[in-house]
Amino acid sequence: MDFERIKAKLDALLDAGRKAELRGALTMLNEVDIAEYLQTLDNEKVLMVFRLLPKDTSAEVFAYMDDDQRTQLMEALGDEEAMRIIDEMFVDDAVDFLEELPAGVVKRMLAGADPARRELLNQFLRYPENSAGRIMTIEYVDLHVGTTVGQAMAEIRRTAPDKETINTLYILDSRRVLLGTVGLRQLLLADDGKRVEELMNQQVISVRTTDDQELVADTVRKYDLLSIPVVDGEDRLVGIITVDDIVDVIEEENTEDFEKMAAMLPSDDTYLKTGVLTLARNRLPWLLILMISATFTGSIITHFEDVLQSAAAIGVAIVSCIPMLMDTGGNCGAQASTLTIRGLALGEVAPRDIGRVLWKELRVALLLGVVLSLVNFLRIWFLTPYDRDVAFVVSLAMFFTIIIAKAIGCSLPLAAKALHLDPALMASPIITTVVDAASLMILFTIATQMFHIGA
Amino acid sequence: MDFERIKAKLDALLDAGRKAELRGALTMLNEVDIAEYLQTLDNEKVLMVFRLLPKDTSAEVFAYMDDDQRTQLMEALGDEEAMRIIDEMFVDDAVDFLEELPAGVVKRMLAGADPARRELLNQFLRYPENSAGRIMTIEYVDLHVGTTVGQAMAEIRRTAPDKETINTLYILDSRRVLLGTVGLRQLLLADDGKRVEELMNQQVISVRTTDDQELVADTVRKYDLLSIPVVDGEDRLVGIITVDDIVDVIEEENTEDFEKMAAMLPSDDTYLKTGVLTLARNRLPWLLILMISATFTGSIITHFEDVLQSAAAIGVAIVSCIPMLMDTGGNCGAQASTLTIRGLALGEVAPRDIGRVLWKELRVALLLGVVLSLVNFLRIWFLTPYDRDVAFVVSLAMFFTIIIAKAIGCSLPLAAKALHLDPALMASPIITTVVDAASLMILFTIATQMFHIGA
Repeated sequence: MDFERIKAKLDALLDAGRKAELRGALTMLNEVDIAEYLQTLDNEKVLMVFRLLPKDTSAEVFAYMDDDQRTQLMEALGDEEAMRIIDEMFVDDAVDFLEELPAGVVKRMLAGADPARRELLNQFLRYPENSAGRIMTIEYVDLHVGTTVGQAMAEIRRTAPDKETINTLYILDSRRVLLGTVGLRQLLLADDGKRVEELMNQQVISVRTTDDQELVADTVRKYDLLSIPVVDGEDRLVGIITVDDIVDVIEEENTEDFEKMAAMLPSDDTYLKTGVLTLARNRLPWLLILMISATFTGSIITHFEDVLQSAAAIGVAIVSCIPMLMDTGGNCGAQASTLTIRGLALGEVAPRDIGRVLWKELRVALLLGVVLSLVNFLRIWFLTPYDRDVAFVVSLAMFFTIIIAKAIGCSLPLAAKALHLDPALMASPIITTVVDAASLMILFTIATQMFHIGA
Repeated sequence: MDFERIKAKLDALLDAGRKAELRGALTMLNEVDIAEYLQTLDNEKVLMVFRLLPKDTSAEVFAYMDDDQRTQLMEALGDEEAMRIIDEMFVDDAVDFLEELPAGVVKRMLAGADPARRELLNQFLRYPENSAGRIMTIEYVDLHVGTTVGQAMAEIRRTAPDKETINTLYILDSRRVLLGTVGLRQLLLADDGKRVEELMNQQVISVRTTDDQELVADTVRKYDLLSIPVVDGEDRLVGIITVDDIVDVIEEENTEDFEKMAAMLPSDDTYLKTGVLTLARNRLPWLLILMISATFTGSIITHFEDVLQSAAAIGVAIVSCIPMLMDTGGNCGAQASTLTIRGLALGEVAPRDIGRVLWKELRVALLLGVVLSLVNFLRIWFLTPYDRDVAFVVSLAMFFTIIIAKAIGCSLPLAAKALHLDPALMASPIITTVVDAASLMILFTIATQMFHIGA
């Protein structure tokens, strides 16, 4: 059943005021779908439907609602009921929600929480933004060295309902230092009397609370992990991060790369929720910088104005080829830079590969340059009123532009990475601006030589 | 310990021929790291080190090696040993590997396998490329209706070692139709005598064998799943897909979008492994199309050649502003199209939102247009020899170019989506080409009017 049909049925029950039936219908839905349904309602109805949900469902639905609606619902519910929901949520979801609230509201919310929970949430909120500490959860099962398999299973049975995952258990010493992990399946297969440390895997891959979430995502992706432990500066276990949260981090980081590669500052929110002023502010800096840089390209034209004015027909012919030359150069450069940036992001290419990358790009450029210049030469010669000399000048400029565009396109991202800058900034917009200048220099220099015009 | 130091130690043991110690050192490493180490060795050494690995480790290391090296290792090992490794691998990893081999080699490999395994692998290889069927695994635990919790736990203990995940158990009727799922933690908490169907969750989110992997990834991401069941046309369970494989699918789909958005056909392999000819072939079609399209832009200049030749100073001034105008227009359009394409990919924006998106982009364009035109006007007036009229013409053209660029940038991807085309194709390169033509039309029209030049 698709969402539109689900919504129609729920709307009918809601409008008719048949609350009991509505509550029944809601129990048949996934929490994500309920949150999506609430999205379509106005505030008053959201509150009404939300209160119909069973307690354990409502906290999870709350975690999937969008920030604005959550904040409004929080206000409508009142502090006490709101706090109960935060108490029901997993710690990572609660922190995620609290982050988005104004500081004053967070303080008020936390004041109502029980002291242990308050201290815990406060501690999470102190980790740097986008760090492992911010996205980790503490709902894992830890076992102390010396625990037997039988004791461990009893412990798991006792605590399982509140844990985000029980697939992996973490074995700690008396100082809470992480010694190793053991899989639930290994416990299930072992004798009750065996000690957990005899079963444990000591090659644990972990991250630190202050590590950037991008590093966490890279590690989880590289090792195909379902969860990763987070340790503090003294190797003590303080949390875990599960792969479902990593999926969100990966999409967030990819969106950031897409934005940077199109000359924008990254945004925090989805497109439709971001305000016009924020969008404009994110886009303006690079547009300004690139616009000013492009005036340099224009000054190349001014410098060679003799070419434009010498023989009228040649001047117009040359100028009319500028858009094609600039666009092709820009596109060639963008192709090389995109593949290099993506390769760097996925760890497939490193700055030390610059020799291999350049050599590959030069050979690609040679192939593309020959084909594109030839097509261009034949097109100008046969399909335009201009003669073979003009066709030759433009096509030769095209050839060299492609070679230079590919070389610049792959080198700048690698250079940025080597200098510990973000390679994603060295994408199409900047490459285009640099290549534009290069292509015009080449075009006018060749034209000046060919037609014996004094520049 | 970082990879370089690990490699140095292993190399020392390898070169000294101290096999026992090397074997010991390897047992301390993760399979992913061992595969990475093998990558740095030549074929002869790869074979030697690979044979030192314990049997259960070697199949997993094999799954993480790169395609070329796997194929060579396969040849070196001989069919019998090779087949034993394939038998040890999870089905999804084995299928993934067999896909990359020449058809003849696959046939030979499968001939050596036991008949049940051969039939199974053949069945997987018949699913369409990039479908759920190709990436699913059959290593899950299923339980039949009527099974008690006690029986289920015994079944899990018996089969757990060969399963990719035991977090979720799948409950089937006698025809293998998927009725529901039950979590391992629920089984752990329930009485031994209870029947599994009393505990099961019936709202199962599943995909079909023929569904595209992109749809699978979207579903797993949306519902934060750790695994998803795959059913055939009659709702019978045939496999599951775990989230660690979904992470790879997400990165693959993102890479495809990056490539399309930079006017390239998607590639199957990592950058450094893709040959020069393939790279050139992937890049040529769009470069050709875009180059030819840009000649149209050039013909606008030819059409307005009166402007270029009328008053020499004005002509050069106007031409020298072309790169800046074209680049700024292209960048503005690319920003709008990138955000729209990304919003579509993540399901945050849909074609029906076109009104909201356009209205938002127009307001953003107005803000950016005013600021950029003003900066540009002042720059030309005060910092160049050209007069206020030229500054006015160029800045006015800049303003309208930005408005049109933003409108085209956000509309084309939405239109593509509505027509069931890939929105990622409507990115920077195409937008730039369209906007270039528009900006030159605007520039020359305004210049013709302003300076009373007959076009």
